Amino acid sequence: MSSFREDGVAAVDWVASYLEGVRDLPVLAQVEPGAIRAALPISPPEEPEPFASVLRDLDTVLMPGITHWQSPRFFAYFATTGAEPGVLAELLVAGLNQVGILWRTSPVLQELEEVTLDWLAQLLGLPPGLHGHIEDTASTGVLSALAVARALRPGRRVVLCSEHAHSVADKAAKLLELELRKIPVDDSFRLRPELLELENACAVIATIGTTGAAAIDPVPAIADACEAAGVWLHVDAAYAGSAAVCPELRALFAGWDRADSIGVNPHKWLGVPMDCSALWTSRPDDFRRTFSLVPEFLQSPDDAVNLSELSIPLGRRFRALKLWAVLRCFGRAGLQARIREHIRLAALFEEWVRGEPGWEVVAPRHFSLVCFRCEGSDEDNERLLERVNASGEVFLSHARLGDRFALRLAVGNFRTTEDDVRLAWDVLRREADAL
Amino acid sequence: MSSFREDGVAAVDWVASYLEGVRDLPVLAQVEPGAIRAALPISPPEEPEPFASVLRDLDTVLMPGITHWQSPRFFAYFATTGAEPGVLAELLVAGLNQVGILWRTSPVLQELEEVTLDWLAQLLGLPPGLHGHIEDTASTGVLSALAVARALRPGRRVVLCSEHAHSVADKAAKLLELELRKIPVDDSFRLRPELLELENACAVIATIGTTGAAAIDPVPAIADACEAAGVWLHVDAAYAGSAAVCPELRALFAGWDRADSIGVNPHKWLGVPMDCSALWTSRPDDFRRTFSLVPEFLQSPDDAVNLSELSIPLGRRFRALKLWAVLRCFGRAGLQARIREHIRLAALFEEWVRGEPGWEVVAPRHFSLVCFRCEGSDEDNERLLERVNASGEVFLSHARLGDRFALRLAVGNFRTTEDDVRLAWDVLRREADAL
Repeated sequence: MSSFREDGVAAVDWVASYLEGVRDLPVLAQVEPGAIRAALPISPPEEPEPFASVLRDLDTVLMPGITHWQSPRFFAYFATTGAEPGVLAELLVAGLNQVGILWRTSPVLQELEEVTLDWLAQLLGLPPGLHGHIEDTASTGVLSALAVARALRPGRRVVLCSEHAHSVADKAAKLLELELRKIPVDDSFRLRPELLELENACAVIATIGTTGAAAIDPVPAIADACEAAGVWLHVDAAYAGSAAVCPELRALFAGWDRADSIGVNPHKWLGVPMDCSALWTSRPDDFRRTFSLVPEFLQSPDDAVNLSELSIPLGRRFRALKLWAVLRCFGRAGLQARIREHIRLAALFEEWVRGEPGWEVVAPRHFSLVCFRCEGSDEDNERLLERVNASGEVFLSHARLGDRFALRLAVGNFRTTEDDVRLAWDVLRREADAL
Repeated sequence: MSSFREDGVAAVDWVASYLEGVRDLPVLAQVEPGAIRAALPISPPEEPEPFASVLRDLDTVLMPGITHWQSPRFFAYFATTGAEPGVLAELLVAGLNQVGILWRTSPVLQELEEVTLDWLAQLLGLPPGLHGHIEDTASTGVLSALAVARALRPGRRVVLCSEHAHSVADKAAKLLELELRKIPVDDSFRLRPELLELENACAVIATIGTTGAAAIDPVPAIADACEAAGVWLHVDAAYAGSAAVCPELRALFAGWDRADSIGVNPHKWLGVPMDCSALWTSRPDDFRRTFSLVPEFLQSPDDAVNLSELSIPLGRRFRALKLWAVLRCFGRAGLQARIREHIRLAALFEEWVRGEPGWEVVAPRHFSLVCFRCEGSDEDNERLLERVNASGEVFLSHARLGDRFALRLAVGNFRTTEDDVRLAWDVLRREADAL
């Protein structure tokens, strides 16, 4: 183990130096497709190499191909953070190498997953009594929820969501051979509940914090309709759900306590490294009926529920450990402070855009995402975005909102400061002037 | 970052000490269901705590609930290893926190994943030209392959596999609403290809190394039948596939080069920490047609394939980095040496069982798994297994083979020595005598 200790210290040092310097690296990788592949040997190594060569090649060969999600100047998609306690917890996860299949294969994995999901439900103000487990991503969470809904209402093959719902709904519906109907949105990009026709529906997906504009579907009205029609309601709050840790924002989540299933991604806005997607349900027995298939070779005498009976994969990583480490090392107060600061920074950026002639905000801002554009055509804005990202100084993304191209600035990295947001605004105006 | 460096060194030290001492810990967790949950606070922490308290509670609160997959005396299911370079690579993965969605969101993730899967295909003697990507587990790999097969042959809703195929086939078929037909096996627990009826089939799953007995289905005959009927062939070599790194074992893999898709789990027998499941296909375009749904907000000008278009989840972890680290730090020679040693140890154990009156080997041994039993009833053998596992000295599992209860000893941990295997044999005989 002496080389493990030495290599381990070198790896910790590498990560520490990386995080210290990441602000100054080009945010979007500046390589051409195929460049990293071309820099790597065509054939695998024959003989063992020291771990030091892995670290060396990470710097010299791989680094140019990294888009720096850990950069405080990453404002694209939904910005994320792999916070320090979560990063170190991944080392412990790998060191322990637990494989959750049945309870007995890792009692700690199963029970810590349930406890941390209970804790997180309390932090977000969800009602007591929900059962929570961890999926890799919201793709799998939505797929699982729709599979349960389909099994409950055989013959009903329609799923409804807003036209702004995430594409994971399309992929899940395709896999499950369900028909996905996209409901038009209002001027604030919210699903119009009066357009829901539920007679052949098995499920509705309502989104709190859509991917494009972080819009908030009218969940109470949707829940009324679902309850009346006996239709499963899944609330997708993958990004925005973490904000419910702040009581002053809870009004934005009205009605989500009435959902049959709820998805929130702690790997998006709660500091947990990729991947960790929370799924709660008020109906765990329906999940079990859909997914439980315990084969003979895995039958065990323990009187316990196995998480593999509630989800698609048979084996699972010990993801709960990193969620636990992050909840412990930040606490409710620490998480609230970061969410509030991100919302403050987004509000500030929104104010700058509103105050600048030739620029406009194009969607209501509820959380840490600002959708905006500069005067000119869609193509002008697209060119602007490409120039900004090509500079490497900051990285933003876009959305199409009401048939217009919109720029998106999402604050979500724990290390982002007001100076970083100001830099984004400076670069945007500089490149707009240059066009 | 000073506290990250300090905490990081403490975490490395914790893992090093854990791996140094894991041989002497009770392999199967000795707790009752609910014990870990009861030892944890009901509510989440309000204020931040230092990372040191996470490490402390890992020792004092969580440790009793850990079943030690890293123990060299873990012989249950298929034994695994999180080898040192893979463990440290997970720290780097979390530190970089890459999110693979589109190529541009992490060029290095996409290209290293393709390169390492090319390397691994070469190591295993697979034909050139396959496209490889990484799934979390074989559950998702099989689900993906069957989804592609279903899309290719609409109206054909039958999937066939041996009655010894893994339960992931049942779960995937249920999700995809396909009918799974289980084909009887011969005396060596191999699918009987003359019983395949393919007229309504879209796919056949052939297994090299079944879960129960590590049996080898007759892949060449199955491939003949599939080719004649235009049916997708998926080869599940989740456990055994890693053994193909040894040329002298390649004959056991005859015909797998003719599969449409092949699954091998480097997290099972190749030292990569959980999770990392390799999936190769000769038909990547069919995968793309099934899974590609690139939404507007993710469209980018880069001319590259995106791995999210070939699989179910939209976002993926940088798993390729740990596979790369393991391939680099062991090399072909290092991996071959470990596989050969495991097979030597299993052959030795088999010899001991064969030589002992009252004990018998109940399935042909090809790899590192020995299926055996002691004289007496199924219940006697079940009681024997429970006593052995309750001792905590070693951990074995069982299978039902031809309606008989069989004990299974699987060698697969990189740190397992001949002494560990001898201990298992001593404990088995001691407990059998005591019964």
